[in-house]
Amino acid sequence: MSTLNRQLCLKHRPEGLVRRGDFDLVRQTLGELNDGEILVRVLYISMDPTNRVWMRDIPQYMPPVAIGEVMRAGGVGRVLKSRSSHFNEGDLIHGLVGWQDYLVIHESAANAYVRLPAESGIPLPRLLGACGTSGVTAYYGLTDITPVEAGETLVVSAAAGSVGSVAGQIGKIMGARVIGIAGGADKCRYLVDQLGFDAAVDYKAPDWKQALKEATPNGIHVNFENVGGDIMKAVLSRMVLSGRVALCGLISGYAGDAKASDDFSVIIVKRLVVRGFLVFDYKKTKQAVHVLSGWIREGKLKAEETVVDGLEDAPLILNRLFDGSHKGKLVLRVDPHA
Amino acid sequence: MSTLNRQLCLKHRPEGLVRRGDFDLVRQTLGELNDGEILVRVLYISMDPTNRVWMRDIPQYMPPVAIGEVMRAGGVGRVLKSRSSHFNEGDLIHGLVGWQDYLVIHESAANAYVRLPAESGIPLPRLLGACGTSGVTAYYGLTDITPVEAGETLVVSAAAGSVGSVAGQIGKIMGARVIGIAGGADKCRYLVDQLGFDAAVDYKAPDWKQALKEATPNGIHVNFENVGGDIMKAVLSRMVLSGRVALCGLISGYAGDAKASDDFSVIIVKRLVVRGFLVFDYKKTKQAVHVLSGWIREGKLKAEETVVDGLEDAPLILNRLFDGSHKGKLVLRVDPHA
Repeated sequence: MSTLNRQLCLKHRPEGLVRRGDFDLVRQTLGELNDGEILVRVLYISMDPTNRVWMRDIPQYMPPVAIGEVMRAGGVGRVLKSRSSHFNEGDLIHGLVGWQDYLVIHESAANAYVRLPAESGIPLPRLLGACGTSGVTAYYGLTDITPVEAGETLVVSAAAGSVGSVAGQIGKIMGARVIGIAGGADKCRYLVDQLGFDAAVDYKAPDWKQALKEATPNGIHVNFENVGGDIMKAVLSRMVLSGRVALCGLISGYAGDAKASDDFSVIIVKRLVVRGFLVFDYKKTKQAVHVLSGWIREGKLKAEETVVDGLEDAPLILNRLFDGSHKGKLVLRVDPHA
Repeated sequence: MSTLNRQLCLKHRPEGLVRRGDFDLVRQTLGELNDGEILVRVLYISMDPTNRVWMRDIPQYMPPVAIGEVMRAGGVGRVLKSRSSHFNEGDLIHGLVGWQDYLVIHESAANAYVRLPAESGIPLPRLLGACGTSGVTAYYGLTDITPVEAGETLVVSAAAGSVGSVAGQIGKIMGARVIGIAGGADKCRYLVDQLGFDAAVDYKAPDWKQALKEATPNGIHVNFENVGGDIMKAVLSRMVLSGRVALCGLISGYAGDAKASDDFSVIIVKRLVVRGFLVFDYKKTKQAVHVLSGWIREGKLKAEETVVDGLEDAPLILNRLFDGSHKGKLVLRVDPHA
């Protein structure tokens, strides 16, 4: 039995937004498994800002994707066949699946994949979003990196995105006054009307800096930062003395475009604590997912996913993270039957 | 009785290094004191990198010095005459004295000045250096902001300067491996031979980044940062995961020159904690001075001052902080009899 696999392999390093031509579509036929191998059908691929960084040849927390290599990406898959004791046929797994239809895992690398509960009652795309990496990121950011106290003002950038939307709602659960920054009136209404944020600032509006000022009359105690550049600069200028910053992402710089230059001096002027973090450092993700899914069941946390079909369009779909044309978690469905 | 006072008043905001012509030399005759006033003879003026920032019209932790205003500066003075119960004739005071021979303090502002012990046995320039603001800055940086543990690697930039030289020695007292970064072979020898640093890196040498790498084979756990720009960039690239940065100063940017742009992304990549701080936030300076002077008596801490005469040369003397042509605390002696 042979399986036809499609892979999107990095052809050359993109500049600015990603183009289809930055990747080669490689078709390969997968043969029989060898001992110790596991064949996985990719079901859903997580579209993350960090994917764009992986395409760049700059220092980062993992090696860049090499030219010719399958594009690296997290996702969920199902084990179709196993010649290893690590996983059984039918298992749902989570880990780096890549931009492809199938992958073969050798059991020596099996530890990099996590078995998902068979019947969690949670839709699979959500296991990549509010009940997965994105939600867990928000959870540890606001419970471990920079806990926010009741009555404090929390500002979240990219607030309608997969991490920001959860971070803002956790801030509300903790009793903070929460202001979200997002692009467009529609998203801003969504944050206030649907997610219960206290206010939202539309950074695409010409007077957004003034709006941020008015929404934070007592300054900002905690900044959960996903964007960087001009937006972060405006937020830091509103921080109270000894304010805390959870530095989660800097998407405004990920595509390598010119952006407002960073400036460490505000960290001294405002006596800030700035903590960078990566969710991969947290091992107790199950515990966080348990809390997050509890909040969803109780109606305290709203989760949203934008699911888009079409593996071959992955480069263009990724760009939606950067033009801001989605809400919540952006997920690519690879298996039309998933 | 009248007193002739010389004042250096900001004429226009300097660009790059400071020039004599950036200040007006104003001569004024001080008349009799009114009720509630205190006449102070300025003895020594502290030359600090932050002075240069005060000349610039940018957001900072205090308002910039206004055009026409006496240049703001810390220092030590002696009360010549008092018509207030706050200070008595003969008192030594510490606070913002300004670039001038004399100042008249109104008692409504007397709380901004601290009475120094009459017979501490500590030379006055040292009360501005290792036993004053500079030493206390280093002390709280390494005991409160980013305590360093025995066996860890601490890197201090501007390590031969007033704050850096104390910070590095405190690191040694705490049992850390201490590497200093300074300009020139002479200063580097001084750090190792005189102050007991484990190694020193001469940032003026062409291969200094390689030297930094070799001096920190296990990475850097704590960075006590005074410089910013290229030097900080090189240090951050050597930090261990979850390393800590005490952000004390960014002198490379203070004169407004073009410098290596800051980049927040390393804070995420390395999961750093970056804490900005100002010594003025610490109220218990006496306690710190007590510990510091104890260490000096015990021979654990070496204090050095560079004392230069000439009030009217203050702008040029300040530049020595930026060209690195001094060791330890740079102090301007205003009263030739002090």
